[in-house]
Amino acid sequence: MKGICILGSTGSTGQNTLRVVRSLPSRFRVISLAAGRNIELLAEQVREFQPQVISVADTDCIEPLRARLSGHRVKILAGSPGHIEVAIHPEVDVVVSSAHGVTGVQATYEAIRAGKTIGLANKETLVVAGEVVTQAARERGVALLPIDSEHSALHQCLRAGRRDEVERLILTASGGPFLRTPLAELEHVTPQAALKHPIWRMGSRITIDSATMMNKGMEIIEAHWLFDLPARQIEVLIHPESVVHSMIEFKDGTVMAQLSVADMRLPIQYVLTYPDRVELRGDGLRLDLVAAGNLHFENPDPKQYPCLDLARSALGEGGGMPCALNAADEVAVEAFLGGRLRFQRIPRVIEQVMTKTSRARFGSLEDVLECDRDARRRAQEQVARYSI
Amino acid sequence: MKGICILGSTGSTGQNTLRVVRSLPSRFRVISLAAGRNIELLAEQVREFQPQVISVADTDCIEPLRARLSGHRVKILAGSPGHIEVAIHPEVDVVVSSAHGVTGVQATYEAIRAGKTIGLANKETLVVAGEVVTQAARERGVALLPIDSEHSALHQCLRAGRRDEVERLILTASGGPFLRTPLAELEHVTPQAALKHPIWRMGSRITIDSATMMNKGMEIIEAHWLFDLPARQIEVLIHPESVVHSMIEFKDGTVMAQLSVADMRLPIQYVLTYPDRVELRGDGLRLDLVAAGNLHFENPDPKQYPCLDLARSALGEGGGMPCALNAADEVAVEAFLGGRLRFQRIPRVIEQVMTKTSRARFGSLEDVLECDRDARRRAQEQVARYSI
Repeated sequence: MKGICILGSTGSTGQNTLRVVRSLPSRFRVISLAAGRNIELLAEQVREFQPQVISVADTDCIEPLRARLSGHRVKILAGSPGHIEVAIHPEVDVVVSSAHGVTGVQATYEAIRAGKTIGLANKETLVVAGEVVTQAARERGVALLPIDSEHSALHQCLRAGRRDEVERLILTASGGPFLRTPLAELEHVTPQAALKHPIWRMGSRITIDSATMMNKGMEIIEAHWLFDLPARQIEVLIHPESVVHSMIEFKDGTVMAQLSVADMRLPIQYVLTYPDRVELRGDGLRLDLVAAGNLHFENPDPKQYPCLDLARSALGEGGGMPCALNAADEVAVEAFLGGRLRFQRIPRVIEQVMTKTSRARFGSLEDVLECDRDARRRAQEQVARYSI
Repeated sequence: MKGICILGSTGSTGQNTLRVVRSLPSRFRVISLAAGRNIELLAEQVREFQPQVISVADTDCIEPLRARLSGHRVKILAGSPGHIEVAIHPEVDVVVSSAHGVTGVQATYEAIRAGKTIGLANKETLVVAGEVVTQAARERGVALLPIDSEHSALHQCLRAGRRDEVERLILTASGGPFLRTPLAELEHVTPQAALKHPIWRMGSRITIDSATMMNKGMEIIEAHWLFDLPARQIEVLIHPESVVHSMIEFKDGTVMAQLSVADMRLPIQYVLTYPDRVELRGDGLRLDLVAAGNLHFENPDPKQYPCLDLARSALGEGGGMPCALNAADEVAVEAFLGGRLRFQRIPRVIEQVMTKTSRARFGSLEDVLECDRDARRRAQEQVARYSI
């Protein structure tokens, strides 16, 4: 039995992880959970999965949660120290890291230092702290297994060859809701229109990031750290059908592709059972290739998706750039969703913040967190300047 | 440097193998070649690649060949014993087996018993003698690496998981020239029309086998022996674009696919350099996924392609059935090409021959060869009965 910790258990990845655990009860035991402020759902999860320890966003959530769990012997912690304790619990084998923000990054980092296998769903961990985190994983001999469907696909394709035999990684992208929207109309895009993702149902930031393709830009950065390949060997192809989740072209001309239905339970189960593959249980989880219809690929237009180039240059310049990119994007997307920033100004805010960011390499996670705070402050200033 | 033997060096696989060897001169040395009666081309190959020993179809080819190779110190042999000597030469590491007919099967079998790695391009070896050959390979610990693009694709996809984790192998098929031909019109198909294969340029028998999809039926049988999976786990999907060369669906819902341009040099190089992947040299060998257009998959119609079911039942019944299937198909295709048999009678001839074939298991290669002879005789009789 593998002991499981979920950072972000009430989010969509967390809930899907628990569905996988529920479908394979003899393989996994939930040791610990960490969540934000959704204490109703967390209490339900505790009642079903009986973890030993849980952590919530703030201490003010502890009492209301305890009231809902009378009769349950579960240790309740809060905040970053609570999340870290949950992640490094000695009976935990695999940490599913899907908690957002600084708290998620810190707890993931400490889990790596404690030698846990990491199932990585939180994009920020590698985007803002890729160097620090991958170095810690190397030193500790820890496996960083991606949960993101694209990187899971790359991980699987790479089993057909060695890293030094790779010609290029090909990340596929749905293109988001504005793939066929003329450039001139993007100026008037509303949050409601941007929140309609054609394939995946996700949180609102990541849905907007799909519309700008910043999510794909960040995936380039993540792929760099996960697979240790330079940006020039990582390409993006638009594949609106989202059946091929990513591909690897090897030097010998072979392209390996991973295909499946678009359901997060697949990459989650892959990580939890790795290196084994286990029978998938649930309806609608088998790919019907005949019903899938025509599959095709397009090159992304850099004018339609300027965020792709921003991410590439952040990775190329290194240091605090990817961290600033992520922080500025989060602030800009929030402002867009709040009606305080136009859609096409999202990349402009990020660009402005990046020009004021240092390229110095990070020595520690503390440096990262400071860079993150600075970038957010600058992004807020820039949003105020652009205010609608 | 790997020592290479090519059985069938003047055929298309043989010539492509030599192109790969030519492009990677520091990796390979041609030790020996075997061919049929194309002594002009064989002499040219000897002059360029300087093998130590060669073999031709018959002793009457030896003198004309020697005349063309004056000044070359190459040992010239002939027939089955010559092919065997060429294949088991002590300096040979890899035998590319692409010689047709009984001679090819015998030489391949002896190469396995001599411990050589086998690059298998000759379909007959596994179709007619799958049990005998795979047992010999297991006993000797010899790798049977497929050169056929479909099985090469499966071999590559299987690197992403274990055999016991496979849900099904999915062989892709172009559907041949008659994919959209109404059933009623198949009666009047001419050899000229059947020889127009949409994707691959191949010999005439294999092109007709593509039109009937008997080639895919035989690939089911080969896949069974190569990957040790039952027929019910081996499916066929029509994929007219021939970009995906085959796929594996694993139990966890993941489908791994291998894509590339349709050029035999890729699977040949894969086998020659295995387990490494080496930079592919040559023009037009990179897949352009954007230019590839729409990729799609269809279920084959059993009425359009009765040979598929014949092959499945031959595999299911075992014993001499697959051998008889292959022999009867070869005779029937020859009769069709010679204007002596209608296209739709090809499966009828095979079916008739199979009803008279024993299901007893083969004990030795001799049993196989006897079954092959009997089936050919019966097929000739059947063709005469159907004579146009």
